[in-house]
Amino acid sequence: MSFELENYLQDRKKLIEGGLERFLPPADSYPEKIHQAVRYSVFAGGKRIRPILLLASYELFKKDIKPALPFACALEMIHTYSLIHDDLPSMDNDDFRRGKPTCHKLFGEAVAILAGDALLSYAFRLMAETGLKSKISSSIVLKVIFEIAHGAGLGGMISGQALDIEKQGRAYEEKELEFIHSHKTGALIRAGVVAGALLARAQESELKALSEFGNRIGLAFQIVDDILDIKGGQELGKTKGKDQKLEKATYPKLIGLNKSEKRAEKLSKEAVRYLEIFGEKAKALKELAGYLITRSY
Amino acid sequence: MSFELENYLQDRKKLIEGGLERFLPPADSYPEKIHQAVRYSVFAGGKRIRPILLLASYELFKKDIKPALPFACALEMIHTYSLIHDDLPSMDNDDFRRGKPTCHKLFGEAVAILAGDALLSYAFRLMAETGLKSKISSSIVLKVIFEIAHGAGLGGMISGQALDIEKQGRAYEEKELEFIHSHKTGALIRAGVVAGALLARAQESELKALSEFGNRIGLAFQIVDDILDIKGGQELGKTKGKDQKLEKATYPKLIGLNKSEKRAEKLSKEAVRYLEIFGEKAKALKELAGYLITRSY
Repeated sequence: MSFELENYLQDRKKLIEGGLERFLPPADSYPEKIHQAVRYSVFAGGKRIRPILLLASYELFKKDIKPALPFACALEMIHTYSLIHDDLPSMDNDDFRRGKPTCHKLFGEAVAILAGDALLSYAFRLMAETGLKSKISSSIVLKVIFEIAHGAGLGGMISGQALDIEKQGRAYEEKELEFIHSHKTGALIRAGVVAGALLARAQESELKALSEFGNRIGLAFQIVDDILDIKGGQELGKTKGKDQKLEKATYPKLIGLNKSEKRAEKLSKEAVRYLEIFGEKAKALKELAGYLITRSY
Repeated sequence: MSFELENYLQDRKKLIEGGLERFLPPADSYPEKIHQAVRYSVFAGGKRIRPILLLASYELFKKDIKPALPFACALEMIHTYSLIHDDLPSMDNDDFRRGKPTCHKLFGEAVAILAGDALLSYAFRLMAETGLKSKISSSIVLKVIFEIAHGAGLGGMISGQALDIEKQGRAYEEKELEFIHSHKTGALIRAGVVAGALLARAQESELKALSEFGNRIGLAFQIVDDILDIKGGQELGKTKGKDQKLEKATYPKLIGLNKSEKRAEKLSKEAVRYLEIFGEKAKALKELAGYLITRSY
């Protein structure tokens, strides 16, 4: 990773975490335990990739990214909710994430389920509230809410997760695997990239290009996740070889490590081609696409 | 219940169930299992009280209630999600609801968690989509999304649920009990009543009156639920005495059955007083308030 990109990621992470801090209810809100569980999970680390992509997409069109920050934070809340529920005993049954105890290990299963639920509702609340207070047109905010709800729900993440669980320990075909990966991970990433552009009033052709870009880096991102589950070291902060243990449908299992790496690279290259229409302005998004497939955790 | 009210409830139920049928993704959507789980829970019965209240509130101001139907259905989706998650083994651990196996008994815990998550996202998706397609102003739809997300989330239902769980088997004071009941049940009912009025462009003073009405019938509704848990027969479709078994914080336990019944009646009367400004137009809402505290299941 270049020094420049590292700084960029650090800066954006700080901005997003500052936003999360401000937009969430205070830690001492009543009743305390649920608010603590919510904050614990939101601030348990993470690369903040999804909100960084949303802001980078917005930045293609506008210099001042602050108006997009609440939406970026809402997206991260939805991502955090999905991790809390994923880690539950009846789902992936993970005791650790990013090297820290998972929400249900610390607060119990019931509170963890509620903390996830809380973050999902809160994300929509935050977007609606921002729409009512800001200068962004209300119909654009409705479009953003639609895209994100679609990507997080049956049109995306949930359907991917559901098929992922169904296929655990079972035979699967490549088209099913692609469905799982592009939905469980790709859909919300794509929604974030599109949301950033919508908020900045991008044109139809630009939205289309960014949607294609988002689809491809979203899928590539999950293929790299599969690869890191096999190759990754301690940095991952979660148990290596977890996918294998759960008999998950993965790319390395179906087509091998080498071909999986090639597939991720190919998708990333295809993704970057969709950025050509933006010229030099798309430098950050291009570098992010490269980083997503070369990352080590 | 009067013949007239019974017909009214039946008619509205049919209208809402028709809407749910149309607005949800088709039953054979891919992947099938999650869509089946979602539909199973949505169509497993229920009085449809929340959407009926939303429509009745809208009807105070507008004759044609059709524009409000998608929002009423979204509210019922959120209610259904909360029931699916409530019934989970780590929450209330219910095997039956309305006489039928609960979602996790039929589809497994993982799918049940995802089905709940799916309904929550889908409700917001549906409201945003409706806002984009209909004549209702986008900023009003944002207000409705805000109210409902607030009532369903940390500002309402989730916080009530969280404290409810925390207080299981523990000592509690009346103000904590009131917090639990007015949040876990009251907040979403209030949000629905307010949402109906917002969609119909009610004035500030009317919104305020309906908010007070909603608060009171919401709390009364949950007190009656407590009472029915003790008195209720088979009609309930769930295990009688469940609250006692789980050592839940309830009104009958704290102040006795008799006083609980009086409290519910008092709240209902107070609620109805807030409808006076609407005169004869509020007949349906008034009768609904009466029905909510005299119902037997």
